[in-house]
Amino acid sequence: MRYNQGIQLLAFTFLISSATIATAQKKNFTIAEATNGMGTTLATKGIKNASWQPGTTRLWQAVKEDGKDVWKVTDYRGLSSKNYRISQGEYPIKVSTIPALRWHSKDKAYFVSGTNVVTGALIENKWVWTLAAALPEKAENITVDKSGNIAYTIDNNLYVQEKISRKKVAITNENDKNIISGKAVHRDEFGIDRGIFFSPSGSFIAYYRMDQTMVNDYPVVKWDVTPARADIVKYPMAGGKSHEVTLCVYNLATGKTTTLKTGDKNKDHYLTAVTWSPGESYIYLAILNRDQNHLWLNQYDAATGQKVKTLFEETDPVYVHPTHPLTFIPGLSNRFIWQSERDGYNHLYLYNTNGSLIRQLTKGKWVVNEIAGINAEEGTVIITTSKESPLDKNIYSVSLSNINLQRIDKDPGMHTAVCSPDGKYVLDVYNGASIPKNTFVHATDGSGSVEIMKSPNPLAEYNRAQVKSITITAADGYTDLYGKLILPADFDKNKKYPVIVYLYNGPNVQLLHNSFPESGNLWYEYMAQRGYIVFTMDGRGSWNRGLKFEQATFRHLGDVEMADQLKGVAYLKSLPYIDSKRMGVHGWSYGGFMTTSLMLKYPGVFSCGVAGGPVMDWKMYEVMYTERYMDVPEDNPKGYENANLVEKVKNLQGKLMLIHGTSDDVVVWQHSLNFIKKSVDEGVQVDYFVYPGHEHNVRGKDRVHLMQKITDYFDVHLKP
Amino acid sequence: MRYNQGIQLLAFTFLISSATIATAQKKNFTIAEATNGMGTTLATKGIKNASWQPGTTRLWQAVKEDGKDVWKVTDYRGLSSKNYRISQGEYPIKVSTIPALRWHSKDKAYFVSGTNVVTGALIENKWVWTLAAALPEKAENITVDKSGNIAYTIDNNLYVQEKISRKKVAITNENDKNIISGKAVHRDEFGIDRGIFFSPSGSFIAYYRMDQTMVNDYPVVKWDVTPARADIVKYPMAGGKSHEVTLCVYNLATGKTTTLKTGDKNKDHYLTAVTWSPGESYIYLAILNRDQNHLWLNQYDAATGQKVKTLFEETDPVYVHPTHPLTFIPGLSNRFIWQSERDGYNHLYLYNTNGSLIRQLTKGKWVVNEIAGINAEEGTVIITTSKESPLDKNIYSVSLSNINLQRIDKDPGMHTAVCSPDGKYVLDVYNGASIPKNTFVHATDGSGSVEIMKSPNPLAEYNRAQVKSITITAADGYTDLYGKLILPADFDKNKKYPVIVYLYNGPNVQLLHNSFPESGNLWYEYMAQRGYIVFTMDGRGSWNRGLKFEQATFRHLGDVEMADQLKGVAYLKSLPYIDSKRMGVHGWSYGGFMTTSLMLKYPGVFSCGVAGGPVMDWKMYEVMYTERYMDVPEDNPKGYENANLVEKVKNLQGKLMLIHGTSDDVVVWQHSLNFIKKSVDEGVQVDYFVYPGHEHNVRGKDRVHLMQKITDYFDVHLKP
Repeated sequence: MRYNQGIQLLAFTFLISSATIATAQKKNFTIAEATNGMGTTLATKGIKNASWQPGTTRLWQAVKEDGKDVWKVTDYRGLSSKNYRISQGEYPIKVSTIPALRWHSKDKAYFVSGTNVVTGALIENKWVWTLAAALPEKAENITVDKSGNIAYTIDNNLYVQEKISRKKVAITNENDKNIISGKAVHRDEFGIDRGIFFSPSGSFIAYYRMDQTMVNDYPVVKWDVTPARADIVKYPMAGGKSHEVTLCVYNLATGKTTTLKTGDKNKDHYLTAVTWSPGESYIYLAILNRDQNHLWLNQYDAATGQKVKTLFEETDPVYVHPTHPLTFIPGLSNRFIWQSERDGYNHLYLYNTNGSLIRQLTKGKWVVNEIAGINAEEGTVIITTSKESPLDKNIYSVSLSNINLQRIDKDPGMHTAVCSPDGKYVLDVYNGASIPKNTFVHATDGSGSVEIMKSPNPLAEYNRAQVKSITITAADGYTDLYGKLILPADFDKNKKYPVIVYLYNGPNVQLLHNSFPESGNLWYEYMAQRGYIVFTMDGRGSWNRGLKFEQATFRHLGDVEMADQLKGVAYLKSLPYIDSKRMGVHGWSYGGFMTTSLMLKYPGVFSCGVAGGPVMDWKMYEVMYTERYMDVPEDNPKGYENANLVEKVKNLQGKLMLIHGTSDDVVVWQHSLNFIKKSVDEGVQVDYFVYPGHEHNVRGKDRVHLMQKITDYFDVHLKP
Repeated sequence: MRYNQGIQLLAFTFLISSATIATAQKKNFTIAEATNGMGTTLATKGIKNASWQPGTTRLWQAVKEDGKDVWKVTDYRGLSSKNYRISQGEYPIKVSTIPALRWHSKDKAYFVSGTNVVTGALIENKWVWTLAAALPEKAENITVDKSGNIAYTIDNNLYVQEKISRKKVAITNENDKNIISGKAVHRDEFGIDRGIFFSPSGSFIAYYRMDQTMVNDYPVVKWDVTPARADIVKYPMAGGKSHEVTLCVYNLATGKTTTLKTGDKNKDHYLTAVTWSPGESYIYLAILNRDQNHLWLNQYDAATGQKVKTLFEETDPVYVHPTHPLTFIPGLSNRFIWQSERDGYNHLYLYNTNGSLIRQLTKGKWVVNEIAGINAEEGTVIITTSKESPLDKNIYSVSLSNINLQRIDKDPGMHTAVCSPDGKYVLDVYNGASIPKNTFVHATDGSGSVEIMKSPNPLAEYNRAQVKSITITAADGYTDLYGKLILPADFDKNKKYPVIVYLYNGPNVQLLHNSFPESGNLWYEYMAQRGYIVFTMDGRGSWNRGLKFEQATFRHLGDVEMADQLKGVAYLKSLPYIDSKRMGVHGWSYGGFMTTSLMLKYPGVFSCGVAGGPVMDWKMYEVMYTERYMDVPEDNPKGYENANLVEKVKNLQGKLMLIHGTSDDVVVWQHSLNFIKKSVDEGVQVDYFVYPGHEHNVRGKDRVHLMQKITDYFDVHLKP
């Protein structure tokens, strides 16, 4: 049902795009603008360094006044927008611009500059700043607790600078660099983005400890030193020995460390969703088996490490994919929200800490994206969801008691929500196909909104592409897929255009949104300016469409995705202005895998492809990700064989260029080098380029070179 | 004077080339034939496994009879060609084809198959074979002495299997794999091709010991294992710490090892020209200083390691480049021949072992290439020289007593000479522009010759290119340079052709010879068949033209070579049928350095270049070679800076493709990767391809892929 709404919405947006008249005076994008412009010279203006002051309804932002950065503070209580001026005070270190504040309390905040931690006290509308810590140069993962303790890592060890004494204590002292404490583990899968977890009052530090001594060595060569040097990293490949992770608890008062008893016999599992109980006696932890189809949500005694109980279990015949910690309801230490895809879509579940489900808070064929805050007084949770359309993200409130769902924002588009600490107000920064960037504050009870900023269109002077949103039925015969056609500004339906299909189509990623710019990427528009039509579409297996949509690819990555992309190709071929003999395909990472798959398994469809950082053989990709979608090679030999592109190189008909970063430690360089070797063995001509020193993605200034390289390749072989 | 003769000779050959009529029915080369054909399907037939039987004037060869390989033995005494049939006998191991014999004496020979050593006794015209040794699978450098001892290396250690007892003894037992015994040292520079030297009677083994623990580590990644593995090799870079080499003597009777006292204080030098005295009491050794401009020819006592004396010294303001051991005159233990470039050309010098020069045996503005043998009875040395022309190699005899020089062979061309043990006869296998391969036996006293074989033209059915030999004056205004123009069979002087310049132009290599096929390379002809003209020329700095010609490039590699190649370009531009806007350049290794140099230092001359395995920065090339031609970076900073191509990438105007073998341990991969990195830094588009697992040259079947890759690149960018 919701999908029908989606289609109608999209039907409205059909050919609502940039002006098709008066393009003559407008500028074309340079390759640099097309590549990095939206993040630099063409960035949409917005509010800067915004934060809510705890215990208040005041929003802070940095503004320019007489060429200087100053704080502008606005109290939105009752949506009255009362402004204050706050003095920056004197910083104890050199600060080039007004720092982004992180708040501990109503009158205490801090910021981190390099490895310096500066804490501030707000006294009579003036900041008094103190250099709380000057940490060693190699300090990383600097984590500041409101009590004053500062934890950080140096190399593989964890340290804390204690409050008051400012003594620096080594929590771990491990010589073996492959035993790592205080860092994110499991290659940042399962929503893991850090390894240090202060308890609520700051008396304890929970931290991840990862032993990867048993994992395969992998060489990543540093070429920018002479002679070159091989840095040996640990890279666990699908089906191989993986690292062992535990969660430890350091007691700052005693200096003692306890390890949670998560499994003496079996350590081949994943620990995620680390959450302290509000009273800091317990730690909640989700344990997921190596097979990734069985999750236990466990409670542990933080002092002894003993398991208290399993609150509940989740299983799925395909996989369980936890990516969020628990969210406790403020003031209620026995109530928390758990996010789960157990009914097929990511939704919120209110639990009691005895493990009993109180109620499912959200439901429907759409997903909850994030929890933005909780309005404890009203008893509502502020969330963002894809309820309006899988291409949009809107702000809602949901009642904890009666699951009443209310939309808070106004416009279609991609909304990010930052709640005031009490959950009563939400800062809403959003953009949409024709909205560069709008900023509002809404009352989360629906009582009103204040507009803060409507940003001008930074692309107004440019010769913009026409964007045509389309909906295609997937190869299963019924699922709607969303795509976009990017047409030259001077598009002439009587001409024949070469096409470039840009794709990713892997899990956890969605390319198409109702966002600004409508094309989704200025490089698409750059190519349109050169006379190409660009097409992009998210097929099954991609993100934000629910579990069934994503799990359709299980154990045979590539197949369903290609079937869907070929539906897109069939649509393109149905268009009279498409030159089906001049079709190119390009993607990176999973998109590189898809590009190469299409070139080898459907030769003749595309005459030219560019595959960046491509997975060529899933046996060489990492344990966590690969086994979730493919099981281990031993249990799915046919699936791995089917997806192994190295063995299919002889099928190539068109022109294919591979591109790889030489320091790629995500999709290791060997993927493309093995493919190149096989192409030589088989006498097949493939083109190649590498970006020395770049990791999985070519970022920054050098990305311009990359996009030029790709553009040139299409120009030579598709000749627009 | 000789050069004038050369020019006249070349004037004669002008447009004497393959038939320009009736090309219609003839075949074009496939890329596989163009690449490897001359070594495989299109190889010129010749005699097989030829050897002279010691103590006789009998030449052995393997011939087919009733589909089986049999020995044909011909006695050339008095050039009477008397034939014998010899039974192969029974082999103790499986032998797929008749083995190539190595002779110990008139009735004793051996051959090595894998790691098996088989010795044979010739008894009444029948071989009786014995499995003398079945060495471990990892045995390398297997060296068989006529007394029956067999020395070999396993990894870094040296072993010997003793005669009679057949006991295998470890001569060295070094755990550190970077202390290596029994192998060639100094990266095979200075003519070094082995590390084991049995004394004449087999009582001692002299061997090189190389300590490279102090040399920089360098990673060479093995990509064909999963996960990839970095093999750490030792690669001494110009100006850096080099390895330390000594010469040791193992006494088989006592099991004791003595080290020659070549320098306790200074080990930073090179040891070459290792030669046992005929009586095996002494070892002669050339010591060359690190600066490579001072050589000492020393005599050592083999038993004590003590230096007996320095026979003589050689110095040169630029460099001394010894590449040959001493050659003792049979029966005269106090007379030897020393080869030296001291008068500007490689010539022979007859010395007494007291160090006094008896006489210079050869002289003139041409070089001696090799000593093929000595006719002791006549008192003549049989040599090959470039006396007729730098493009030819002819066989001569020179008298030890009166330096009378007499030519032995008949035809122009490239002759290889294998002397009978007594030096009275020489097997002459040669080819020339219009001679596929001829085989003769000559009496070295000039008394006559016997033709053994005239091989048919294996290319008769092909559509051959026209070859035009040319002589150009070098940029110095007077030196003659030799080049070739390869024109399509259906060349039409009224058309405009794209050109490919193929070059090397580095030291120790000469591309142009009077040889078969006249073009020099079937790929040139393949390109001519595709509508290109190919040009190739040896400029100053290349081989076989004497010391001044070679040393012209000293301390500024690339400059003089480019100046000369640009004279070739000027010649090309003077031709009305050359399209100077469509000129490409290609070379490998030093030729890759030259290609890149020309693209960057003379932008606009060539619109397209392909540089394989290129040196981009001499600081990253090895000590021995680089310092000879460039001195150390510290002493020649401007020379290194001037030749550093990485820093000049922004000058590029045309299309440039680099190609590198990923296991290249000669010109390490970093050369091209650094250049690619810099091209990205500078926003310059360069193309790239790599051959995974290949070393410095792409050989074998994969070379066909390489030449196709290069051909495609020129086809795209020069469009013939």
